Amino acid sequence: MKLAVLGTGMVGNTIGTKLAQAGHDVMMGSRTSDNPKAVAWAESAGGGASHGTFADAAAFGEIIFNCTSGLATLQVLELAGAGNLAGKILIDISNPLDFSNGFPPTLSVCNDDSLGEQIQRAFPDLNVVKTLNTLTCAIMVNPGLVAGDHTIFMSGNDAGAKTRVRDLLHEAFGWKPENIIDLGDITTARGTEMLLPIWLRLMGTLGTPNFNFNIVVGAAPQGA
Amino acid sequence: MKLAVLGTGMVGNTIGTKLAQAGHDVMMGSRTSDNPKAVAWAESAGGGASHGTFADAAAFGEIIFNCTSGLATLQVLELAGAGNLAGKILIDISNPLDFSNGFPPTLSVCNDDSLGEQIQRAFPDLNVVKTLNTLTCAIMVNPGLVAGDHTIFMSGNDAGAKTRVRDLLHEAFGWKPENIIDLGDITTARGTEMLLPIWLRLMGTLGTPNFNFNIVVGAAPQGA
Repeated sequence: MKLAVLGTGMVGNTIGTKLAQAGHDVMMGSRTSDNPKAVAWAESAGGGASHGTFADAAAFGEIIFNCTSGLATLQVLELAGAGNLAGKILIDISNPLDFSNGFPPTLSVCNDDSLGEQIQRAFPDLNVVKTLNTLTCAIMVNPGLVAGDHTIFMSGNDAGAKTRVRDLLHEAFGWKPENIIDLGDITTARGTEMLLPIWLRLMGTLGTPNFNFNIVVGAAPQGA
Repeated sequence: MKLAVLGTGMVGNTIGTKLAQAGHDVMMGSRTSDNPKAVAWAESAGGGASHGTFADAAAFGEIIFNCTSGLATLQVLELAGAGNLAGKILIDISNPLDFSNGFPPTLSVCNDDSLGEQIQRAFPDLNVVKTLNTLTCAIMVNPGLVAGDHTIFMSGNDAGAKTRVRDLLHEAFGWKPENIIDLGDITTARGTEMLLPIWLRLMGTLGTPNFNFNIVVGAAPQGA
């Protein structure tokens, strides 16, 4: 499949490399067509890997991974171009973390709105599927790094788009379909973006980003 | 131990009953000394159970469970009285959920502050320990309802108070100490209160409140 990755940071690199290894044709997009990080990535990732502008990548991919910083995302998607995004699926991995006042960061949007919703409103012809934004990128592409079952979430308005994303996460990254919980429409992205504050504190307490949430369901309570 | 429960709702009932069953002397506090719900609870909970005003309960308990609605909590603690609270431990189970605009609720405070911090600032001589606010009350007092390991969190400024709370949660409710993650000072309550939006969506998706988060830690990533 033709896939796009927006962003040249660690998340974009990790996602793009794994998608290329899984046999997909992947274009990494950035602000300029000759971004040295994107050039280096395309050389190392092999056969089907290429690079271009955000607009080039958005035009290329059937499914587009947003691996940009949350505070930059809306501007990046403007550069990608509404016409290039129309009818496509955007897998939105970003979080609206604002580190301008140091640690802990705040969210630039939360509670009664989310970045996922802002993207969907700004690009109504794009199918936004928010997922993978609640764990570190090494585990995103290799869930086996954490033993046993653990959970990722999915938010989006289009059932067909969510099915395609679930299939891709299973096929390319190895996520068991039953460990991908569909929370509902894009408004449920508030919940997953608002997980970031505890995620960041857990990283500090545990001393590693290599952990994940697992949702465990119990039996019906007896009385109580 | 002499313990207090503030609030006569389902959480206060469930917590108070389990504490009484564990052999503690428990006073349930409410706005009036003759609240029918508190009277009925004290009759059913047996030997060491009693009831009184919020101030009576705060004066009685060495450790006080805040089981009131988050939007009422600060007013309730004013009624309990700073003098009665001074030097005590408050186990704060509440969440600042505002349902005034329907479902999903918003949080009346979040992101750069939390209800736990508001309580600690308003009552500086009280040791606030935020915990148990991320799961349904049936599981709070009976973690065995969910099979295997699963996690609760703890936030508070006083290490000694957190140790006492950890011991009580283990002894009275059966929480394994290793499943209680100390996130740090009371500012980390932002993280656990901001879990509520996804908790509420998960309850809808799973069709039950009988679930919990388990934090699973992985091995160090190989490359990636």
